[in-house]
Amino acid sequence: MHLKTIGEFGLIERLKAGAIVNPDKVIMGIGDDAAVLQGADDYLTLASTDMLVEDIHFTLATATAREIGYKTMAVNVSDIAAMGGIPEQALVALGLRPEQPVDFVDELYAGLRECGHRFGVNIIGGDTVSSPRAMVINLAILGRVEKGACLYRHGARPGDVLLVTGDLGGAAAGLDTLLAPRPAPAVALAFARQRHFRPVPRVAEIRAALPVGGITAADDISDGLVAEIHTIAKASGVGIILEADAVPIAPAARQLAAIYNKDPLDYALYGGEDFELLLTCRPEKVKEVQDTVARACTTPVTIIGTVVPAAEGITIRRGGTRLPLKPAGYNHFQ
Amino acid sequence: MHLKTIGEFGLIERLKAGAIVNPDKVIMGIGDDAAVLQGADDYLTLASTDMLVEDIHFTLATATAREIGYKTMAVNVSDIAAMGGIPEQALVALGLRPEQPVDFVDELYAGLRECGHRFGVNIIGGDTVSSPRAMVINLAILGRVEKGACLYRHGARPGDVLLVTGDLGGAAAGLDTLLAPRPAPAVALAFARQRHFRPVPRVAEIRAALPVGGITAADDISDGLVAEIHTIAKASGVGIILEADAVPIAPAARQLAAIYNKDPLDYALYGGEDFELLLTCRPEKVKEVQDTVARACTTPVTIIGTVVPAAEGITIRRGGTRLPLKPAGYNHFQ
Repeated sequence: MHLKTIGEFGLIERLKAGAIVNPDKVIMGIGDDAAVLQGADDYLTLASTDMLVEDIHFTLATATAREIGYKTMAVNVSDIAAMGGIPEQALVALGLRPEQPVDFVDELYAGLRECGHRFGVNIIGGDTVSSPRAMVINLAILGRVEKGACLYRHGARPGDVLLVTGDLGGAAAGLDTLLAPRPAPAVALAFARQRHFRPVPRVAEIRAALPVGGITAADDISDGLVAEIHTIAKASGVGIILEADAVPIAPAARQLAAIYNKDPLDYALYGGEDFELLLTCRPEKVKEVQDTVARACTTPVTIIGTVVPAAEGITIRRGGTRLPLKPAGYNHFQ
Repeated sequence: MHLKTIGEFGLIERLKAGAIVNPDKVIMGIGDDAAVLQGADDYLTLASTDMLVEDIHFTLATATAREIGYKTMAVNVSDIAAMGGIPEQALVALGLRPEQPVDFVDELYAGLRECGHRFGVNIIGGDTVSSPRAMVINLAILGRVEKGACLYRHGARPGDVLLVTGDLGGAAAGLDTLLAPRPAPAVALAFARQRHFRPVPRVAEIRAALPVGGITAADDISDGLVAEIHTIAKASGVGIILEADAVPIAPAARQLAAIYNKDPLDYALYGGEDFELLLTCRPEKVKEVQDTVARACTTPVTIIGTVVPAAEGITIRRGGTRLPLKPAGYNHFQ
């Protein structure tokens, strides 16, 4: 049996067994955006790691060193945001080709630091090794969240409202233009590239929303909206109805989709890497969450669906009909 | 300018600049075996990361998946031991070939867990991604140490005694036999292989020694004894005299060196990866440290030199003559 057969998520299930030797401080191990540990004072410690591999997550043909650095930090910061937390410390391990110019590494680090500075994250340590065949960057991030405020994937309940921050599809449109460059308006291309390489993790948004209360679950959209809907539904033991017409699509994604003769909803549902937050929220708190986030960050928070009992399944409603929403999204090894 | 030109340590110096945005909790950032943060209660939090790349740190031609997993955990645990700490939590990121058998990954994880169980380390999270050209494993580890007990590289003072736990050269002899297999007694070969793939981080030893007091600096021997002597001397602003005849050499390293027509001292001084601890200690505490560690763990702690003022330089004394001890050891990119 090969990895191709069981896929990334089948593998993760196998790796969970026997992972915890000493449960004293461990509130959540493998299975959410970040691990949750007992921390100091009234805080929990959050810990997560993401590895980026050349020609899988990025390619030197299209990404600058600075973009690679920025994105590596951003995707890790996003994991902390998805738990409701504040990112704090990063460990950076770099596997580099010996013939890479020092300038390249300086720029990579400038990107890491630029994003780190923006979100208050220190680079406290790391490792630098030789990796002649493919560049690899690994970042491990630590953060904190108040006890009782931590947001898990498993907290959604029937009756909750499904929310998403910002808009979707921009990163996928950006990737599409990178993979197959075609003529299109410069502004739309630049925006899509920006969304692909310099996502904005929603730390400020979730930190503004938390004091309102009512948010029951959160996940960041790395593998695509549909994949994350399935993740929350599975973790929470619920069903979800997604309202197709309500999904906020990035204007540049819409514009590029029209030129490329694609359905912009495909970018938004399956593209991934937008690093927006998918939230579930008690209905009576939705308006206040929306208003508070808009006031604090100017970021829209859009109602895109409803949490229903598990028996109703995971469906998408478009133009009056409700259809099963099959899981789809990026899966390593498959 | 290429990485080859400035080397691993030149690169690390460049990466330190601007790394800390928010110094509140950071006691030590880049520059020791682990970062040191304010922790909960009377503890500091330790954090470190190590990346292992296929055909640089291991090769599938000689290492089993279980050995790779075990060693990855062990080298990270050793970084925590080198700070005087107790390892606690690990984040594991794996970059795997899609065609790798699931059995291989199961065995790799079994090795990680075996070492984790031995040292009380949980695997609390990770990442699994596709890396078609070379396997990569990154582990980030968290640990704790009592405030005031943390051991840095920079604490050595003239008059201190240089100590080393266990014996040296076994891992290098093991690597030598793997790189160029030659006939030799099976017991010596097995021992050397064991030392190379399954090093024993000296957590129990340093935890037994700490309450005695008097230890002023520590470093784990990953890049070779001579390299670590230079590291401690540079960080502490001191000189060091190494007594060549006092260096404890692993019996198997001695036996294999004789067969291979090599100087066993070369294995011990330059080979690296023994993951013993190099310590400096106030002279009046040396005997008690030795006795306490021997009683608690049966591991010898050997006097191998003296800390002297920086002006005396870093030298090795062998057979009555004192010669400059040039820095040498593993350096990525060079």
